[in-house]
Parts: sequence; C-alpha cells; structure tokens
Amino acid sequence: MKHYTSINDIDNIDSWIKEAKALKKDPLKHKALGANKTLGLLFFNSSLRTRLSTQKAALNLGMDPIVMNVSGDAWGIEFGDGTVMNGNTAEHIKEAAAVVSQYCDIIAVRAFPTLTDKAKDQSEHVLNAFKAYASVPVVNMESATGHPLQGLTDAITISEHKKVSKPKVVLSWAPHLRALPHAVANSFTQAMQKMDVEFVIANPEGYNLSPEITKDTPIYHNQEEAFKDADFVYTKNWSSFDHYGQVKNTDPNWMITKNKLGNAKFMHCLPVRRNVVVEDAVLDTDSSIVIQQANNRTYAAQLVLKKILEHV
Amino acid sequence: MKHYTSINDIDNIDSWIKEAKALKKDPLKHKALGANKTLGLLFFNSSLRTRLSTQKAALNLGMDPIVMNVSGDAWGIEFGDGTVMNGNTAEHIKEAAAVVSQYCDIIAVRAFPTLTDKAKDQSEHVLNAFKAYASVPVVNMESATGHPLQGLTDAITISEHKKVSKPKVVLSWAPHLRALPHAVANSFTQAMQKMDVEFVIANPEGYNLSPEITKDTPIYHNQEEAFKDADFVYTKNWSSFDHYGQVKNTDPNWMITKNKLGNAKFMHCLPVRRNVVVEDAVLDTDSSIVIQQANNRTYAAQLVLKKILEHV
Amino acid sequence: MKHYTSINDIDNIDSWIKEAKALKKDPLKHKALGANKTLGLLFFNSSLRTRLSTQKAALNLGMDPIVMNVSGDAWGIEFGDGTVMNGNTAEHIKEAAAVVSQYCDIIAVRAFPTLTDKAKDQSEHVLNAFKAYASVPVVNMESATGHPLQGLTDAITISEHKKVSKPKVVLSWAPHLRALPHAVANSFTQAMQKMDVEFVIANPEGYNLSPEITKDTPIYHNQEEAFKDADFVYTKNWSSFDHYGQVKNTDPNWMITKNKLGNAKFMHCLPVRRNVVVEDAVLDTDSSIVIQQANNRTYAAQLVLKKILEHV
Repeated sequence: MKHYTSINDIDNIDSWIKEAKALKKDPLKHKALGANKTLGLLFFNSSLRTRLSTQKAALNLGMDPIVMNVSGDAWGIEFGDGTVMNGNTAEHIKEAAAVVSQYCDIIAVRAFPTLTDKAKDQSEHVLNAFKAYASVPVVNMESATGHPLQGLTDAITISEHKKVSKPKVVLSWAPHLRALPHAVANSFTQAMQKMDVEFVIANPEGYNLSPEITKDTPIYHNQEEAFKDADFVYTKNWSSFDHYGQVKNTDPNWMITKNKLGNAKFMHCLPVRRNVVVEDAVLDTDSSIVIQQANNRTYAAQLVLKKILEHV
Repeated sequence: MKHYTSINDIDNIDSWIKEAKALKKDPLKHKALGANKTLGLLFFNSSLRTRLSTQKAALNLGMDPIVMNVSGDAWGIEFGDGTVMNGNTAEHIKEAAAVVSQYCDIIAVRAFPTLTDKAKDQSEHVLNAFKAYASVPVVNMESATGHPLQGLTDAITISEHKKVSKPKVVLSWAPHLRALPHAVANSFTQAMQKMDVEFVIANPEGYNLSPEITKDTPIYHNQEEAFKDADFVYTKNWSSFDHYGQVKNTDPNWMITKNKLGNAKFMHCLPVRRNVVVEDAVLDTDSSIVIQQANNRTYAAQLVLKKILEHV
Repeated sequence: MKHYTSINDIDNIDSWIKEAKALKKDPLKHKALGANKTLGLLFFNSSLRTRLSTQKAALNLGMDPIVMNVSGDAWGIEFGDGTVMNGNTAEHIKEAAAVVSQYCDIIAVRAFPTLTDKAKDQSEHVLNAFKAYASVPVVNMESATGHPLQGLTDAITISEHKKVSKPKVVLSWAPHLRALPHAVANSFTQAMQKMDVEFVIANPEGYNLSPEITKDTPIYHNQEEAFKDADFVYTKNWSSFDHYGQVKNTDPNWMITKNKLGNAKFMHCLPVRRNVVVEDAVLDTDSSIVIQQANNRTYAAQLVLKKILEHV
C-alpha cells in the first residue's frame, strides 16, 4: 500500500481487523520499524482524537511525529492550477507537498470540505493534490468526503463487540444545529459494505448520502423500523447532500434515546453534542461503547502506518 | 500518589525537596521509568515556563510529551451536567477526558479561572471534571485556585537559597493593571505553611486571600513592617478575593524596590511586569533569584511525574 | 562557534559545504551527539520549511525539539530597556531568554522585521536581545535582516548543481504585491560573496539592498543584461530599502520566465507566488531546483546544530 486515503485502500478488511487486534495486544512489537522516520501531521482543521491517536500510533512504531497547524503556523495554500497568485494564498500545493516530502517520510493530512462547493469537495482537491505532488505516502486524517482511519476503527470496534456472527448495524442520522460533513458517514458505510454484517441506514427524507456511497444499502426514513433488532447503532449527523451542505432538518425526534436503542450498542466518532444528538442516558451507561471506539483509533492508525512503512 | 492537583497532595514537603534536589543533580537517572509512556499537556491558556519545563521534565524521564492547545487545536469543551449542547461547545468533558486517557498515560491541564464567577472558580470545575472523568492521573499545570507545580518549585528554591535554618519568608502583593488569579499566591501560601519557615503575608486592605488558604498566617497591611528582617520576598499580584476578580488598588507604593528589599532575596513566578510589579534594580542584580527559581520548575515537574509513574 | 545568527559566523564556507554534503550522505552518523539535549524553536512568525527542516535536523542529531509559537502560545514580550510595563507586553526579553535557557540547550528564533521602523530592524533588536540574555547558543531562523540557514542552504545547493568551476550567479528581484523583508536577499548576497562565483544582483532602480550588504557586488537595473550567461538565477522579492518597507514597484516585466532564464537554474527560498514572481513554465520543469534546495535546509540546519553541540 502506498497511500491510505479511502476505505477502498483496504484490500481485505477481515485480515486488517485481525492484524489491528494483534497490534493492540502488543503495541510496541514493531517499535524498530519506524526508527529515524518522521510522520508529518498537517491540520487544516481542528482535531483532538486524530491529533493524539495518530501521534500515539507513530510513537508506538518508533516514528517521530511532527505536528503542524497549516492555517495558523504556515502560509495560505493555493490549490488552483495556473493561478496568478496575487491574492491571499502565498504558497502553491505543488511546492508545499513536495517540500514537506523532503522532511517527512509519511504525510498525514486533515482538510475538511467547504460544504458550499459540491463539485470541489467531491473532487477531493486538497487530498488529491497532496497525492499528486507529495513524493511520499499520504494518509487521510479526514478529507472532504472520507475519514477512513475512523471507518477502520469502527470496523475493529464492531468486530470486538459483536455477540452474533453477523450483527445488524444501523447508521443513523441524528439532529445537529450546524452543517456537518459527510466524511464519517461515508467511510463507515464503505467499511460496513466490506464486512459480514447486515447494514442499513436511517435518515430523514432529503438526507440520503451520495448514491455512489450508499449503493444498494437499504435506506430507511423511519428510524424505529430501521432500529428493529439492531446490534449496533452508529450515529452521526450530516448536512444534506442533495441540497448540498444545507441544514434542512433539526427534528429532535431523531435524537438517540436509551428507549429507542434497546439492547443495541451506541457508537459515535466523537465529539458528540449531548442531549442534541444523543441523550445522557445512553452515553452514561454501558449502552455506549464510544470510549472503547476512540481507543481503537490508535490501532487503526498504527496498522495503516505499519503497512505503509513495510511497503516503502 | 494518583493525581497531583494541590499542594495538599504533598505528604512530606521536606522529603519531596530532598528528592527534587537529587533529581536535579542527576536528571537522567530515571530515564527508563517513562519509556513508551506519553504525557498529554492540555493548555486552555497561555504558557511559557510550564509548557517548556514540563516537557523537559517528561523528556528527562524518557516520556513522550504531546502538547495540545485545547482552545485553538480542538473543540469547545462543555462542563455542565445535563446540558443540552446546542450552543458553542461541541464536546463534553466526560468524553474529552475519557478519550484523552486512551492516548496519554498522564494528563496535565492548565485552565485559568473566570475571575467573574467565584463559586465556579472555587469549585475547580475544570480540574475536578478531569479528575472525575479521566481514567489516568491528572497533573495541575495551574488551575482556578492553585498552581502546585509552582508552589513546589518555590519550596525547593527557598530550601536551596536559605542561609538560616528557619528563614523569614514574606508573600507580598504588588500592583498590576489587570485582574490576575490567586492560584500562585494560594499554592505558595500552602507550601510555606508546610515548611519550617516564618511566613507572613503583606497585602493592601481588601486584598486578603481566601481565609481557607491563609488560615492563621499573619497578614500585614503595612508592607514595610512585613518586610522587616525578611530573607525572602515572594511577590505576586492578585485581584481582590472579597470583591471577586476586581482591581480595587493599583497603588505604585506597593511596587518592590531594591531599597525596600534590603538583604532579602526577590522571588516571582514570572512573567513579571518590570517597573510596575518590581523595579529593574531588583531584577538586574543578585537580589533576584527568579531565574534559578524558573530552573527548578523542571525538577518540581519531574518529581511529580516520577512519583506518579512509580505509583501507576 | 557559539551562536549562528549571520552568514558572517561561517568561518570557511567551502569546508562548511563539504561537511554539509557529508552529513547529507549519512544523516544519522552523529545521532549520539544531541542525545538528552533539547532544541527550543521559538516562532514569532509563520514558518513551514524552517519549522519542519530544523526539527528534522535536530532529530537526525538525536536532539528533542520543542516548538513554541511565541505569539499564540505564551505572552507578549517586551524588548525596551527600562520600560514601565503597563501596556500590552507581559514579559521582558531579559526574563524570557534567560528562562528558556533553563529548559533548552540551544534556542532557535524566528522574528521578522517591522518593515516600518528601519533603525529598529537594522539594530536586530529581537535577535540581539536573545543573544544578550540567553545563556545558551542562539540560532537565527530568520531575523529582521538575515536568514543565514537559508543562505547556507543556497551555497550548498549551488555547489551541488554547478557545472563549471566558477558559475555565474544572479540574484534577481521579482515583483510581489506585499512588502517583504530583505533577510533572504541579504544572506544570499553574503553567502555568494564568500564563494568562488561570479555574483551580480539585478533589481529595479530604487530597490538596491543596503550598501553595507551589497558592498562591491555589481548591481544591474536591466534584468536581461544581468541574466546573460547566468548559471543560476536566485529570485526573491524585497520591499524598498531606501524608501524603507515600501512597495514602489510591481512591474510584471520583472517576473521570471522560462524564456529569460535560458539554461540557467532557477532558485527560490519558497514560498513563491506562481505567475507573479515566476511563471509556471519555470517551476514545472527541470529549470527549477527549488525542491532540491528546500531539501538542503535540513543539512544546513543540521551542520549548524552539530557545530554548536561540538563547541558547547
């Protein structure tokens, strides 16, 4: 594997999950692998879990992480081809990506979507520019349309917590006041489609994810119906894809409650707004496995970095 | 020791001072102790000495420090219980603290007081939330009401520089234009109360610290009288505690001068405003031991981390 | 060598280039040299290349880099002597530099000029204050008037890419919309004056660099004439020195084109504004060696740190 920028880069999710579990049991086993190698973590946006867990993963492999908040620490980056750069951007991605490749053995990038320019976001222009112009492997730490480190984490977590061989997994939209990206929902959907689970999506009308992502996954507009006999309810808000980036619905009836959940386990990528997305009674009980899920971020990242280091 | 959040966590200050001095002589002796362990440094506020010295202390113990400016790097954190999070905060401390505990073996936190909400500040709601919801030890890098790494540093410094067995130590208020916290003055007071020193406090009327802190320590409103025969004058501004967070007095007569100081050594936690809090003639001569004091920040932090690592 | 703050600190540029090339071939050879030593990187301004390459250089030598964005992470710093600090600055450089010296074995500083106060900038008041008050070596990561890590990088790069024993090197001004510093142009000029090259400068009238820098280097106001038979064209915008910090000229005819360049190699310190300073046709072809140049930033920094560590 050269880059890891999408769930599609996972060749065999079952063997990846197995490897990640082995890493989790013995996280320092491959400490020599990354010796004298640097991981550059470039953040165009805020991050807590990704920032910490990816550094931890790098340290477990003996790598030196170097963190940079691109927006605050460096220069405005230009992505346009042929631009006359007489505006606010001071450095072109062609130079930026090539230059960072001189100092870092792997580049990890977080760059959220605009949520206003659908074509630009769908083109993954930031991530793909890094892939095009960096001379080293690129890892997606959440891009415009995907968050594959999270999706891999979620697959590992479901594998660990499932009590039946083929659990029913529901991805449920939940209300939120702000316009949020589709990245987590997309990568989770793609991960579930690769696993041996019964997977359905629940979201209000007008909130279907991109059909290129959902493919033939059943989509319910009735949450109760979707949740029936669920083993896992993965919750996430996203803004409308059809009315791109708009908040058309904040219906509190879609909030996740203990009552709705029944015996299902609650999952969320975090951060989560309590009593808006999900009620306290879920998060504060054993129904929730969000912290165990967050813990797996380390091993998902570590597996990805290990595979890249072994390939280099 | 699990957490280190207050001077009250020091069981025997004399033995701690002795241990800190031993660490200072041989800072790398315990380099194996922290191997493969991470210290998360979470800053809700600015920091120079604490930021650098705590990282240095961690490195001396072989730990990997991971620094995060919470406000700039991550999400607004909610501390309220049962809050419907439809405002500016995006992540609850219950999740944040539990999640950071997945990636860091020790969490160090800096969170200043509001200085407007006395009850909230006195409750130490940020620090206590970390203690409640983190699953790993928590170190106070200056909270609403205490700065115990500084207080321990100050105790070490006085022990190193004293020329009589029981020196006279004065904590003196000095003028400042802004409303400053009570944390440093509180922790210094608590540290001195544990040491074998003659300890008095000098501050203008209306500027007494919390009586729960000062207890039976003599308080002078006449600076000259308090400074008589002093061996150490520890200076710090704080805003009014009674008229909570207000600046009721900026009397320049309380500025520390070479003349007032006599043979006493001048101490300050830094940063210090020259010629407002203290005149140049003090800082630029041997009367001042502020740099030696700052140096001890490393060994105070290292001792605390060492004790926590040994306990884990 | 104690400090490295100017190209003048290079005693013999040819032997330094030779040593840097040796480091580049075997970057980890001296990994033991910096063990248990910290490099403090203090940024008053934005940085990408310097931030990453200097950390990489430190890691190659086994040092622990500690990065701080002074403006965002810590306190406003006062540089005036005798100031009554009742304004926006909270900490004097006398304390700041002395304190950082307690935690870091070497201090590297980036502090750009005001471009409004010529006397202040020319006095290098920030850099010189660090030299005066720090008790450890100071490295210039770009100051008001110089960028000697870049100048050394450039010398190494020219030495690697030259095809004749004494190449012709042109430093050419190019247009830019903003007022930029003279630091890079100054240090490049000083480096070239020390090397066995034919060195000339091309800039519009009214844009001569300080005569104390240019000395007897020929200055052309006709770019075409200057470029004749050039082997290297080093391009950089700078604001007027005579009309200090002003942008008096943005003539697009001074933009570097493939046509103007002929067989010469194009160099630039980066970031560079495409199609303003230089056209795409230069950067996107073998005419440009800017990425190779950026790569050498690591070895220039590593050589400087190595020499300091060996001297300490």
